[in-house]
Amino acid sequence: MQVHAYGAHAGDKPLEPLRITRRPPGAQDVQIDIAYCGICHSDLHQVRAEWAGTRFPCVPGHEIVGRVAAVGAQVTGFKTGDLVGIGCIVDSCKHCADCDAGLENYCPDMVGTYNGATADAPGWTLGGYSQKIVVHQRYVLRIRHPEAQLAAVAPLLCAGITTYSPLRHWRVWPGMKVGVVGIGGLGHMGIKLAHAMGAHVVAFTTSESKRAAAKKLGANEVVVSRNADEMKAHARSFDFIVDTVAAPHDLDAFLVLLKRDGALTLVGAPPTPHSSPNVFNLITQRRTIAGSMIGGIPETQEMLDFCAERGIVADIELIRADQINAAYERMLKGDVQYRFVIDNATLAA
Amino acid sequence: MQVHAYGAHAGDKPLEPLRITRRPPGAQDVQIDIAYCGICHSDLHQVRAEWAGTRFPCVPGHEIVGRVAAVGAQVTGFKTGDLVGIGCIVDSCKHCADCDAGLENYCPDMVGTYNGATADAPGWTLGGYSQKIVVHQRYVLRIRHPEAQLAAVAPLLCAGITTYSPLRHWRVWPGMKVGVVGIGGLGHMGIKLAHAMGAHVVAFTTSESKRAAAKKLGANEVVVSRNADEMKAHARSFDFIVDTVAAPHDLDAFLVLLKRDGALTLVGAPPTPHSSPNVFNLITQRRTIAGSMIGGIPETQEMLDFCAERGIVADIELIRADQINAAYERMLKGDVQYRFVIDNATLAA
Repeated sequence: MQVHAYGAHAGDKPLEPLRITRRPPGAQDVQIDIAYCGICHSDLHQVRAEWAGTRFPCVPGHEIVGRVAAVGAQVTGFKTGDLVGIGCIVDSCKHCADCDAGLENYCPDMVGTYNGATADAPGWTLGGYSQKIVVHQRYVLRIRHPEAQLAAVAPLLCAGITTYSPLRHWRVWPGMKVGVVGIGGLGHMGIKLAHAMGAHVVAFTTSESKRAAAKKLGANEVVVSRNADEMKAHARSFDFIVDTVAAPHDLDAFLVLLKRDGALTLVGAPPTPHSSPNVFNLITQRRTIAGSMIGGIPETQEMLDFCAERGIVADIELIRADQINAAYERMLKGDVQYRFVIDNATLAA
Repeated sequence: MQVHAYGAHAGDKPLEPLRITRRPPGAQDVQIDIAYCGICHSDLHQVRAEWAGTRFPCVPGHEIVGRVAAVGAQVTGFKTGDLVGIGCIVDSCKHCADCDAGLENYCPDMVGTYNGATADAPGWTLGGYSQKIVVHQRYVLRIRHPEAQLAAVAPLLCAGITTYSPLRHWRVWPGMKVGVVGIGGLGHMGIKLAHAMGAHVVAFTTSESKRAAAKKLGANEVVVSRNADEMKAHARSFDFIVDTVAAPHDLDAFLVLLKRDGALTLVGAPPTPHSSPNVFNLITQRRTIAGSMIGGIPETQEMLDFCAERGIVADIELIRADQINAAYERMLKGDVQYRFVIDNATLAA
C-alpha cells in the first residue's frame, strides 16, 4: 500500500513529503498505524549521510508508537487496536546465539528500522516518519502506558532502551552511585531510569544552566564537568557511569571517578575518536570501559513495562511533519528538552 | 641487620653491589632468607627512572622466594624453615574495603615491595635483590611446590598472579576460548595458566619464530598478529583476551576478535598511549576494555596452590647477581625464555 512519509533524496537535501510503499502484512506480520515518531540524533546522521552507506530516498525514524491496524494469520500476541511500539530493530536472523538470548540488537544480521537491507521495495528499510509500518511480530512491543502518554512513550523505544539496557546489564541497584554523562535525549532518560532503579544519581553536564533541570529529572547531584574541583570531589566513588555524549571528549576525567571494578559504558559513538584513555586508570583499579547498543526485544518490553508501572515517559516537544527540518537545526544547537516527537497525523496534511 | 644487595644509585648508572639495612622483625613480622628473586620488566622501568618517582639507592625485585629465618611473637601461620614467597606488596592500610576484600593490590595505601613509602630506613622499601627481607605476616605467601622447583616458582609472585587474577576474575572456564597477547614473562604464564584452567588457548605473537615454543607452553593455536588473514579467521570468537604487551599497539585488532560481551584486559601500561580504540567496536558487541593489576594476597595464595597442585612453574634462566645488568640488556632484546631469576646466594660473592 502507498502511504505518506517524510524523507530526503540526498544527504545535502532537506527532508520533504514522499510517498512510499509498505508490503501487505504476511502471516507473521503486524501492520501498524503510526501515531507518533521520535526524532533521534541518529536520524540526522543517517539522512545527512554523515554515516556511511545511506541509501536514498531515506526515511528515518525508529521511535515508533501507534495502533495495530491488521495482523497476519499466525500472529498470536497482538490484535487490531492494540497500542504498540517499534524501536530500532525490524528483523534479525532469529536463530543465532544472540537471537536465542533475546539480544537481537547484537545479531550480525540485525536489520535496522531504516536504511537496513530488506527484500521489500525499494531494497532498504524505511522508518517511522511515515503513516504506517509492517513488521514481523517478534519485533513489535506492547505499550501499557495510558493512551494520553503515547507521544511521550515514543522516545523510550530508542533513548529509553539505550540507557536502560546498560543500567540493567551492569546491575544498577538501590544505593549504588551512578553517573549519567550528558543531559540530552539519552541522558535525560538515563537520569529518570537510574533514579527509578533507586540509585544515587549524579548528572554530568558541561553547562551550569542545566543544573536545575537535571535535578528536576531525578538527579541527586549535578556536576559541571568543566569544574575540576567539583570533579575531584567525586574521585573513586562511582559504581557505574553511563556516558551518552557522542562528541569526542576526555574519558579519563570520568574513569578516575570510578571505584575499583567500576565501569564506564559508552552508548554514543563519536565521529572522530576520543583521546586515548590512560591505561593506568584502568589497571590500578581494575576499571572497565565498555560499550552498549540499544537493547534486545525482551529487554525493550521489560523497559516499557518498567516505565508504564512507574509512569515514566520522555520529556518531549511535539511537532508537525513540516517542522522536521527546523527541529534538526534546533537539535544541533541543543535547543530541545529533551526529544522532538512528530505527530504523524500531520504527514497527510 | 646489614645485608648484601644489588641496586643502583641513579637512573643512568648500572646496578652494583650494595649493603642495606633490614629492620629487626616486629611481633607480626616474618624474616626471610631470600633464595631466589625473579627479574620483572618493572624492575628495569623503576631502577632506570623510566617511571616517575624512583628513589635512590633503588633495590628492585618483587618475585621473592626463600625460607623463614625468624618470626615475631604474634606470627601464627609461619615458622622457621617454611618455604615462603613475597610478591609485589609488603604493606597496605589493612582496614579499607579493598583490604577487607583481600584486594590489597587495589588499596590506595598499598606499599610496593620496592620504592614504596615506609618508616624503615632509608624511607622507601628495598626489594628482593638482597639476602633477606622482613615483611608483615599478612603479605607472606606459603609455597607448597617441592624445594627443587623453588627458583622457578619465584616468577609466579608477579608474572603468575598478574595473569592468573584476570583469568579468574573474568571467569575463565573449560571450553572457553581465551587469547593471550605477547609471549614473554607474563604471556608465557598466561598460556600455562589458561591451559590449566581448561580453556582453548590462542597465543598471539608478532614473531613467526615463537610459534612452536607457544604450543609447547600449552597454546592450542598460535596466531601471528601481523598476518591479517590469520587474525580475520578468529573474528568475533573469543570469550576473553589478556593482553600482556606494554608497548603501544592497536587494541582494535584484538577487540574485533571478541564475541559479544567479551573482555580485552590489559595488564601492561604502555609508556606512551595506545592508539585510541574505536568506540564502535565496543558498542556493537557490548565489548569491554579493562585493566588488572597483580592480585590480592588471598588470590596469590590460591594461585600458588593451584600451580603447586598441577606442577606449574615458570620457564626460567638462573643467573648470578653479577649478570643482572647483562640480563636487563638481553630482556630488552626479548632474549630470555621467559624469565631471569637471580640466585641470591651469589649476592655475597
